[in-house]
Amino acid sequence: MPAIEKLVLVGAGLIGGSFSLALRRAGAVGRVVGVGRTAASMAEALRLGIVDQVAKDFACATDASLVMLAMPVGQTRAVLRALAPKLGPATVVTDAGSTKCDVVEAARAELGAALPRFVPGHPVAGTEHSGPKAAFAELYRGRKVVLTPVAQTAAAALALVREAWQACGAQVHELPPDVHDQVLATVSHLPHLLAFALVDQVASEAHAEQLFSYAAGGFRDFTRIASSHPEMWRDICLANREALLRELSKFEGQLAGLRKALEAADGAAVEAVFARARAARNRWLDSAGHGPSL
Amino acid sequence: MPAIEKLVLVGAGLIGGSFSLALRRAGAVGRVVGVGRTAASMAEALRLGIVDQVAKDFACATDASLVMLAMPVGQTRAVLRALAPKLGPATVVTDAGSTKCDVVEAARAELGAALPRFVPGHPVAGTEHSGPKAAFAELYRGRKVVLTPVAQTAAAALALVREAWQACGAQVHELPPDVHDQVLATVSHLPHLLAFALVDQVASEAHAEQLFSYAAGGFRDFTRIASSHPEMWRDICLANREALLRELSKFEGQLAGLRKALEAADGAAVEAVFARARAARNRWLDSAGHGPSL
Repeated sequence: MPAIEKLVLVGAGLIGGSFSLALRRAGAVGRVVGVGRTAASMAEALRLGIVDQVAKDFACATDASLVMLAMPVGQTRAVLRALAPKLGPATVVTDAGSTKCDVVEAARAELGAALPRFVPGHPVAGTEHSGPKAAFAELYRGRKVVLTPVAQTAAAALALVREAWQACGAQVHELPPDVHDQVLATVSHLPHLLAFALVDQVASEAHAEQLFSYAAGGFRDFTRIASSHPEMWRDICLANREALLRELSKFEGQLAGLRKALEAADGAAVEAVFARARAARNRWLDSAGHGPSL
Repeated sequence: MPAIEKLVLVGAGLIGGSFSLALRRAGAVGRVVGVGRTAASMAEALRLGIVDQVAKDFACATDASLVMLAMPVGQTRAVLRALAPKLGPATVVTDAGSTKCDVVEAARAELGAALPRFVPGHPVAGTEHSGPKAAFAELYRGRKVVLTPVAQTAAAALALVREAWQACGAQVHELPPDVHDQVLATVSHLPHLLAFALVDQVASEAHAEQLFSYAAGGFRDFTRIASSHPEMWRDICLANREALLRELSKFEGQLAGLRKALEAADGAAVEAVFARARAARNRWLDSAGHGPSL
């Protein structure tokens, strides 16, 4: 018998779809039921074998072993509110949102007695593509998944979610929610904001077409994450805006320092920043801490 | 007989080395003589077949068909000054610097009667690697090379340099030097500055190791160009600092707008920037204007 007899997937795009496909490949899941906003997307998930069945509401959660929330984080609270009264007494709930403090807060507000069976999580993996078609079973192989349990989280629920992610090939880590959010603001949310901001700046120029025509591979890679899903990233940036604003402030200070150095034609100061950055990045690449996906 | 009987390469790293290897593969060059700052780098270029011979000074330029300057742009003026008295009456000089106004100014100041035989150029190609070992014959295939001739530039010199780049597989375009510099500040120099700045910011945190350990593929690609050569990029940023500072100011304004939207939790404004950026980037990817190298 698979570890997860029945999985309910709320959102069957890149993240949720890949979770289902990876669990299926591992033989770790029985039946997968999808719930989503748009019928077209759910039909596609059905056609692609991501779900076995599509449900109209959360009544399907009553006998579910696990419910995975994999829609944009901005919908978490409303989904938990609708889900809470339908949860069976043994159903574990987890999520894949890129921010955790807001998700924990929503869970505390909405789940009541089911809070111990909620395991907040975040797979640090993805691509710039979205939707069911973007899902693939290998997405999480070798990638980090961060679980951010709270004091109330039940050990059995945590173990189930941990094993599910391990079955997907992921390395499971634990962090407090606020540490998670600060770390991700630095290494993920701020870079996304900067990439979106730069592309929008170029696109808003009167001679944008000429500018883009001279953009090469450096620009392409720097801006890859600016092809990410706008609604998903709007929600992440809003949900984690305090940490993101702190990082943004630091970055504005960093740019102010570089501006001053450039204005003064202070080559030594400019080169010092560049050399430190190159050395740090190359050390990171030499370590095992980086991965081939988003 | 090859189009270029004798090529003098000043700097035999990624850019100059790849130029030589591409010309050799095309049978477009006879002898290649290297001049460089460090004996070790020149010995490596010799060993790798990038140059046939290493020269100690610019006396070798007297009977050269073409001199290619491919060292960091900050050295351009000093190199032209040393080179000018050694140039033969038919020797054409070109460069591969990423900035063109400063190079043109240096050429006007240093080349005297040889100015018409100087063709400023910039191959919009590269990788984040540097040195002779990073050079490869295919670097310029299908990539853009921008030549920025001035009023005095001789048609025959321009034609020779154009044909050399075409023999390397490049598409040759022409732009006025100041237009080139503004365009490249937008799509190349600013992104490099931002990538270096972000990595240095992360590296300067007390818990940098933890931060890097959660950085994934998005961070890796966003910061790839931060592994570029610090001295080369210091020189580019200083040489083009007026245009770069203009772009930096625009970007600071763009970030200030996003900060305001985040502070006000204005999701619609945030999403509008993200959606415009994604749409523009995807249009660009669908066009032929981007390439697989830097």
